[in-house]
This record gives sequence, structure tokens and C-alpha cells, in this order.
Amino acid sequence: MSAAGQGPAPDDPTALVRPVVRALGHYTLPPRPHRVKVNQNENPFELPAEFKAEVLAAMSAAPWGRYPDFTPTGLLERLAARAGWTPDGVLAGNGSNELLSVLFQATVEPGATVVLAVPTFSLYPTMIRVAGGEVCPVPLVPAGPGPGDGLVFDVDALVASARASAARLVVVCSPNNPTGSFLPEAGVLRLLEETDGLVVVDEAYHEFAPWNAGGLLARHPRLVLLRTFSKALALAGLRVGYLLADPRLARELDKVRLPYNLSRFSTIAASAALDRYDELLAPRTARLLALRAGLAREIAAIPGFWPWPSAANFLCVRSERPPREVLATLDARGVLARDVSGQPLLAGCLRVSVGDELENAEVVAGMRE
Amino acid sequence: MSAAGQGPAPDDPTALVRPVVRALGHYTLPPRPHRVKVNQNENPFELPAEFKAEVLAAMSAAPWGRYPDFTPTGLLERLAARAGWTPDGVLAGNGSNELLSVLFQATVEPGATVVLAVPTFSLYPTMIRVAGGEVCPVPLVPAGPGPGDGLVFDVDALVASARASAARLVVVCSPNNPTGSFLPEAGVLRLLEETDGLVVVDEAYHEFAPWNAGGLLARHPRLVLLRTFSKALALAGLRVGYLLADPRLARELDKVRLPYNLSRFSTIAASAALDRYDELLAPRTARLLALRAGLAREIAAIPGFWPWPSAANFLCVRSERPPREVLATLDARGVLARDVSGQPLLAGCLRVSVGDELENAEVVAGMRE
Repeated sequence: MSAAGQGPAPDDPTALVRPVVRALGHYTLPPRPHRVKVNQNENPFELPAEFKAEVLAAMSAAPWGRYPDFTPTGLLERLAARAGWTPDGVLAGNGSNELLSVLFQATVEPGATVVLAVPTFSLYPTMIRVAGGEVCPVPLVPAGPGPGDGLVFDVDALVASARASAARLVVVCSPNNPTGSFLPEAGVLRLLEETDGLVVVDEAYHEFAPWNAGGLLARHPRLVLLRTFSKALALAGLRVGYLLADPRLARELDKVRLPYNLSRFSTIAASAALDRYDELLAPRTARLLALRAGLAREIAAIPGFWPWPSAANFLCVRSERPPREVLATLDARGVLARDVSGQPLLAGCLRVSVGDELENAEVVAGMRE
Repeated sequence: MSAAGQGPAPDDPTALVRPVVRALGHYTLPPRPHRVKVNQNENPFELPAEFKAEVLAAMSAAPWGRYPDFTPTGLLERLAARAGWTPDGVLAGNGSNELLSVLFQATVEPGATVVLAVPTFSLYPTMIRVAGGEVCPVPLVPAGPGPGDGLVFDVDALVASARASAARLVVVCSPNNPTGSFLPEAGVLRLLEETDGLVVVDEAYHEFAPWNAGGLLARHPRLVLLRTFSKALALAGLRVGYLLADPRLARELDKVRLPYNLSRFSTIAASAALDRYDELLAPRTARLLALRAGLAREIAAIPGFWPWPSAANFLCVRSERPPREVLATLDARGVLARDVSGQPLLAGCLRVSVGDELENAEVVAGMRE
């Protein structure tokens, strides 16, 4: 039978899916066998067994059959203390992806423009389109004439595009995935002062950068920061991210956040990681920075490879040979890296996470080959 | 400074939040001290220590610093096997809430109508409005003239409203929270045959009901089922839910699902629970059904209290005295129940989860007082 004004009931249920969703690609990343995994910017240093045992003991004692607290207050307080911010300006989520989705759902009206510095993390445009927004891409620009100079943010163009389109949000990933580019304080300030929408900085990799925008929150109520436990905090498997914003804005976003969105286990593990940050995590980050410098030096010494400057825990590498061939050679050695050459401005580029000494040696050996 | 055509940059960032979000209430459920918690329809039977130890051992051996698989294939296969469905028609999520949100984001165009049987779970209208939809509420109707007869679904009205509004979705929670009402097969079939949109049945409580709609999936591509590990599967603390649908539809919804949305820990625990379902979980559900019958009998024997028929793990109870007073008496004894009397058709009602023998005795003693 059929409702008034419609045709017959469709047999194919995808006819009831929004066209904007049907038009999206079905992205997936099937698992592959490997010895060295440098394709997801993960932390190579697993947290020590005694830390894991401590978290597992707390989880053993917790009731699994009971919902977590509506709001993970203890975790929000720890995050606020570490960021120098106020707990009512912090939201925790099931990965920072969830909080980005909440942010877009809460602020993007149908047809609203979101300015996005590209190339960048491929999930942003998907989430913006699903939220009903229009993506206005603003390309990064070459930092210099050489193949190893990399890309930097074009603040003039970001401001001009945001003003011309009366953008609801300007979204910048800094340090940027996959280019490693970093937007310094003067650039963030210009975005805040010369545009009228929310200025969203995804700081997933901020622990590896020389500066972060946390200190600007108090004076800039339109600034929103996203951060994650998946990189420097070495907990990608547990899916925890957080958002820092003006408390008035955080309260509105919290209406869109789903209740009980963080599992007991993730809350316990994230809180424990923060409690032992100085002892366990800060030294790992320092070590990764040294490893990044070493890896960049070694890759730069290989003819036909140019690592770009990076403020993150990965390197974007320009290659003379087609990246597909390089990746196939790496893959044959059990080294999983990421092809990013399909993105605008990234022809000839691949991305490798900074691993430990052995992993980096494998990457370098594969590139030499 | 200000963008072309706009006023000065707002100091209050909530001016950049969508009006539909600003208009939402800021719901929260602060934790309260208690001895007996029967306010969230949780499972009173914590899984045994040896099951928890087994899951914790698997988690101890897993890499916490590495992302989970993009798609939790092993879990999807187990869910499909148990539901008698195909793995490519299953999505797993961080609680069924997440998958409901994905479903609404993927299918609700701005201004689209969603027919919703009410009173029901309060999160549905919030999620529908955030997705840009209009909620068309269709009230349940009294099952009979008595104060203990409860409410049943009005299938005629659901069909008529869906047809009149060319609804994109009809959403029914069955067994329904908070009334315990159950929509039998004939009703689900009428919705499928007499309306043109997706027919969404939230079966969070289906293990406590005499029937579920899983067997209809193969012949009805517009049927979508939501289920959860938070009730009969006793894992509310870990946030796992799943969705069953036609594989073509599931593939479209999967584009909106955020990658890596299920933590390693939740995936491991949910898989282990399914592996030991018959041994550990089925007996708990049988025991809860017996406890539900006993609790209903005892409450019915108290003058001025009428428990409604329930196909779930809770009872909606009509009370002669104002629910607020009853809840205060319960609260003074350390018993946390839920006031649902503010919802349409539920004047005089409160909701209590079915607990274990001791918890139920406390609830009954409190009501007698």
C-alpha cells in the first residue's frame, strides 16, 4: 500500500536514506597482516603492564551491569586541571570524533558553510555534510619552493573565505593530519579576531607541538578545542577524546551529547592515565620527539625522499617514486604505511607514524630498498 | 571585526548554536546515594567474577595503544548468529543510542516527519529534533477501564498518522519504556504493510518479551531493529548496542557510523557474553521473569498501587498517592525509583526496575509504608 502522495512502498530501503548520505563513499580500513604498523599515527609505546593491571583491578571491582555516571565528573575535573581550564567547559566523548560530530550537529544549520583547511583528516567533510553543512575548502600553501618544504596554513585565505561565506565555523586541524603543519598562536588569534563564527582547532596531536591554544580559551569564547587519548596518551584502543570550550557553549553541546557515552572502562583508564601523566606519558612523548627528529634525518638522507616538517607524531614524506610502489615495497616487508597521495596537494606523498627505534629502522630500510 | 552582512562578533558563543538545540532542556541525572537502585532498568545480576576475570585477561593481553578494528567483525558475526540474521545486516555501536542517532542522521531530512508512539523513552524526540526532523507523537491508549490495565499501542492511529504525514520513519519502542507495553507481531506487520517509511522497533527489552521481530527482517527490508547489551545482557557499564537491518540499508548507515566507535574492551566483553549466553545469561533472564511476576503480585496486593502489565524488566506502577510522595518515602529508605508522572498519560505513575529478591522486597516494603 502507499501513503498519500507517494509511490508504492520501496523494496530497496536505501530509497529512504538522505541523498547526501547515499552520495558518500563507504570508507573502510580492513585489517592487514603486518610486523610494523605505522599507518594510523598510534603510539608505539604500550603503557606498562603494571599500569594496565591497576586499571583492570579497578574495573574488576566496578559493577559492569550498572550504567556509568551521566557525566564522568572525576575525569572532567582531571582534564580541566591538566588543561588549566574549568570542568564545566570540558566534555568527554567516545573518541574526539564523537565530540566533533556533536559540535557539528549542534551548530550547523542546513546549508551553513563550514570553512575547512585542506588537505586534512578525511572524516571532517563527511561529518559536516551529514550535519547538513556545506564544506568550503581552503587549501594549505607551500612553505617554500623545495620538495621537502611542506605546506602551511593560509590564514589570509581562511579569513577571507570565512568572511565571504559568513561561515558558522572555521575548522583547522593543528598539528594537521596528514601534513604535520602547525598553526602558531598568531594564526589562531587572527582567526578569532577576524572571523565571526566558532574557531575549531583539532589538537589531537598537540602534545607533539611547540604550542597549543589552551591558554586562549579564557579570553576567546568562540574557540573550541578537540583533543584525544589516542596519540600521546597511548589509549587509542579505548576511544576517549575531549572538547574544551566556553562553559555556556559546552552546556549547549552537552544537550546533543548522548548520555552515558563513555564506558566505565574507558573512564577508569583515562583517569588513571592522567593521574600518572608525568611519570608515564610525558617521558614517552619526549622520546617520540627525539625519534621523530631521527627518523626525519634518516629519511632525508635517502635520495628521492623528502620528509616534511612535522609538529605531530608522524611524517608526511614526499617521494620521487610513486607512493604506491613505495608502499608495496614496505608492505612486502610487513610495514604498513599510509598512501595519502590521492588528496589535493599531496601528489607523491605517503605518511608514516613515528614508531620505536626498531620500527623506524624498518621504515627506513624499506624506503632505501 | 565582522563578516559581510553580519553584526559584531558575538561575545556569547551560544548565539552560534542552532535554535532547535538551544530550545532543548539540559537533561541530566546526578548520582544519588542509595542502597537499592531500581531507577534505570539495569540488570541486578552482576556477571560472575570468573567471567569478568576471563574478559580482563583478554584485555590485559590486547594492545591498548592500537585502534580497534574498523569494523568489529567477530562481534558482528556472533550477533548475526544469535539473531538468525546476516553479519552485513548488523551494526554495533556505543550503546543503541549511538545507532539510533546514526539512523536518524542518515534518514531524516530537514523537516521530515517521524511518527513516534508516546509516552516513551525521552531521548527519541531529542535525537529526532537534532537530526532536523519533526516529531509526530501518537499516544498509546488504555488497555481497559481499570487503573491497572496499562496502555497499549494504537496501531490504527500510528498507520493513519504515518500515511497522513508521509512519515519517513515510524518509531516504536517495544517492549516500551516506561509503560512495559508490547507490540505483537500483527501490529508490527501492519506498520510494515500499511506505511511506506522505515519501521523502527527499539527492542532494548526484547529478551523479556514473548516475541521479537527478528524473524521478520528477511521479508521486510524496511524494518530496523535496535537492541542493547545494557538490559538482559547485564553490561550497561560497557555501552554496547546493535542494529539489525537489510544489508543495503546497513551499508548506508555504516557511512554515518563513526569509525572505531566500539572500544576494544567493550568488543571483547560483548563477544565473551555472547559466547556464554546460554550458560550465564539465559538463566538470569528466566529468573528475572519469575521475579517480575512476583513483584507485580506483591505490588498489586498493596492498596492504592496498580502495576501495569509489563513485557520488560521493569514495572510501571499507577499509584493513588502522588508519585512524588511515594518516591520520597522510597528515597528515605535508600531506594531509588523513577518518577514518570510528568509524561502524557502517565499521571500518578512511577517506574521500578525488577531487582533481585532483596531489592524487590525493599521496594514493596517502601510502597507499603
